Amino acid sequence: MGQVVMYSSVSVDGFIADENDEPGPLFDWLTSGDVPLDDSGFLKVSQASHDYIRPYWDEIGVTIAGRHVFDLTDGWEGTPPSGIEHVVVVTHRPPPEGWDSSAPFHFVDGVEAAVAKAQELAGDRWVEVASGDVGGQVLAAGLVDEVRMDVVPVVLGSGKRYFGSVDAQHLLEDPDAVIQGDRVLHLRYRVRR
Amino acid sequence: MGQVVMYSSVSVDGFIADENDEPGPLFDWLTSGDVPLDDSGFLKVSQASHDYIRPYWDEIGVTIAGRHVFDLTDGWEGTPPSGIEHVVVVTHRPPPEGWDSSAPFHFVDGVEAAVAKAQELAGDRWVEVASGDVGGQVLAAGLVDEVRMDVVPVVLGSGKRYFGSVDAQHLLEDPDAVIQGDRVLHLRYRVRR
Repeated sequence: MGQVVMYSSVSVDGFIADENDEPGPLFDWLTSGDVPLDDSGFLKVSQASHDYIRPYWDEIGVTIAGRHVFDLTDGWEGTPPSGIEHVVVVTHRPPPEGWDSSAPFHFVDGVEAAVAKAQELAGDRWVEVASGDVGGQVLAAGLVDEVRMDVVPVVLGSGKRYFGSVDAQHLLEDPDAVIQGDRVLHLRYRVRR
Repeated sequence: MGQVVMYSSVSVDGFIADENDEPGPLFDWLTSGDVPLDDSGFLKVSQASHDYIRPYWDEIGVTIAGRHVFDLTDGWEGTPPSGIEHVVVVTHRPPPEGWDSSAPFHFVDGVEAAVAKAQELAGDRWVEVASGDVGGQVLAAGLVDEVRMDVVPVVLGSGKRYFGSVDAQHLLEDPDAVIQGDRVLHLRYRVRR
């Protein structure tokens, strides 16, 4: 089975957005470089970030997201983000009215069931868990293999936390990747078992 | 004048201790290595950490601390930490009863006054501001030149925050030092002006 990776851009004080879900400068590094990251023409990063991010994105088959992000993005209008085959949404509520049930989105109640469903759909490819409340729950359940933090040099002071509402200690291994981009420092940690 | 540096060990989610001021594994890297950091016989780190930390410690002449840390340590029993000449304590209250007024401790009301006093005492040497509430206030006042975070690979989930109660955005420069020790990643950021 592919591994489960928790991932996001994050401020040096551990926030992934402000209280209103605004990312501030957290995504600036994704659009301010010279090297295209995909065919969108929008995402352009430094060479170092490209060489780190691109192979990772190619590994991801399925993303697990919370209902909050699903609603914020209007369910990505039924089309998963570039390169992703399926999105598993952790939610207690049914899909929105008029939702196209043939879209590759799967609505699952609870994080354990979400990870199981995502791994089944992903096969040998990797499962990405969005950081924040859902990611924190997956970590607390012992189901995250790897934590990737793209650390942006800004103090946000308050907002939505990378690890959500995790409130217990979890040890990680020393980072096995430490890569400087432009306005981002890519850190990759295995979760200690 | 010497620069003002904010410094501490910190978890990957931005905490410098738990709610009861217990550091958990945040200081393990300071005692688990092979290379002595001072004459205490207690502090031993990796060679990489030694080569980064030792010259920095040699620069610091004065430390600014909050009253909470002062009380927690019983005022360091009147003797500043190794290598420090003076401690400036930010407090609205007088020193504890029986305090030796000849000890090199200075009780100052407010962070601007504390930084001014510390720089006067430090001369060309550097001023260190403990992270947490006082450090966050000094950062918010625009008086921090450099932020040093010794990032330990652990998620704490809750506790005392590195940047205290800062609640506005502050941009940093890209890190000008990124050094891997053993159970610590040393990051050094200039504050963007």
